Amino acid sequence: MTGAILEMIDLLARLPGIGRRSATRLVFHLLDANPEYAQRLGAALCDFHNQIERCSECANMSDQNPCPICTDHHRDDKTVCVVENIPDLWAVDSGGTYRGKFHVLHGLLSPLDGIGPDDLNVDLLIDRIKRNHIGEVIVATRPSVEGEATAMLIRQSIGALPVKVTRIASGVPLGSELEYADARTLERALQDRKEM
Amino acid sequence: MTGAILEMIDLLARLPGIGRRSATRLVFHLLDANPEYAQRLGAALCDFHNQIERCSECANMSDQNPCPICTDHHRDDKTVCVVENIPDLWAVDSGGTYRGKFHVLHGLLSPLDGIGPDDLNVDLLIDRIKRNHIGEVIVATRPSVEGEATAMLIRQSIGALPVKVTRIASGVPLGSELEYADARTLERALQDRKEM
Repeated sequence: MTGAILEMIDLLARLPGIGRRSATRLVFHLLDANPEYAQRLGAALCDFHNQIERCSECANMSDQNPCPICTDHHRDDKTVCVVENIPDLWAVDSGGTYRGKFHVLHGLLSPLDGIGPDDLNVDLLIDRIKRNHIGEVIVATRPSVEGEATAMLIRQSIGALPVKVTRIASGVPLGSELEYADARTLERALQDRKEM
Repeated sequence: MTGAILEMIDLLARLPGIGRRSATRLVFHLLDANPEYAQRLGAALCDFHNQIERCSECANMSDQNPCPICTDHHRDDKTVCVVENIPDLWAVDSGGTYRGKFHVLHGLLSPLDGIGPDDLNVDLLIDRIKRNHIGEVIVATRPSVEGEATAMLIRQSIGALPVKVTRIASGVPLGSELEYADARTLERALQDRKEM
């Protein structure tokens, strides 16, 4: 309605998944809530980008450099899992079965969007492989056209370096029904079948 | 994962309708977006409660006192619409047909929640009626037990003051199907039927 309230609604409505209606509800919640909360959130937001930096080793984002994953000595530092972005890193890491290191590309090859090999964080990966005598690189980009192209790029960039390069398996997701799997997933599941 | 990122997720997840998953997505969006946005939102949040105050006339919240509605001379200042809260004020006002003034109670009678007559902004309403020679008070609290009790309280508080007191109509919402109306709404719609 008036200046400051409308401005706050406009700012919040820019966040993904938050329309004007949700933004309006959030603003009324803020007005009702303890002012201390809005001020804490505000201060954290102002300072957020200053606190977070890219790990110079793996390009993970955190408030430490090198990041807590790179400095964790309980992790297998001979295995590196290559992911597209930080949410993917979190998803693999929170699964709890993978206990190696990571490498974040911050994107996938996508010529239509103008993203070429030089825009991805691949040089640093090659450098890490040579420097740290990495034993295995697991390419965990998503199984899409861009993800597969990026996996190929990584395979080619690694070339003849003495390191095993693997790709995560694609197929029918666990617990799902075959009936609802798309044709290409089923095709891949059949193609990559294992002897039992 | 690490300090500042986790703290931001915790803070955002406290907002209504935003769970940890949405909060995490918002944080990754913030990390990818221009830092200028997070800083603008942060600064606006820090300053929000200092900018917004309660109108001393009608208890609307805005960055002006008296609020823009109270100072709008194109509005009929002899009619006052009484609403529970600011979202209700916005809802009535944005309809565009009501062009009078408002009065915000900031709550409804609710003995179970410990909200009694003294917790609602009723005294100021009585004062306005006397001071400004109000012609009509429209009670627009919601048609629930609390809303009806609050409407009765207002009616009683106004007592014999020379002012018309009206209550918004309840019944089947426009465009809805009778089939889906609840029994009490239908009962009210029948009770309050009009000659045609």
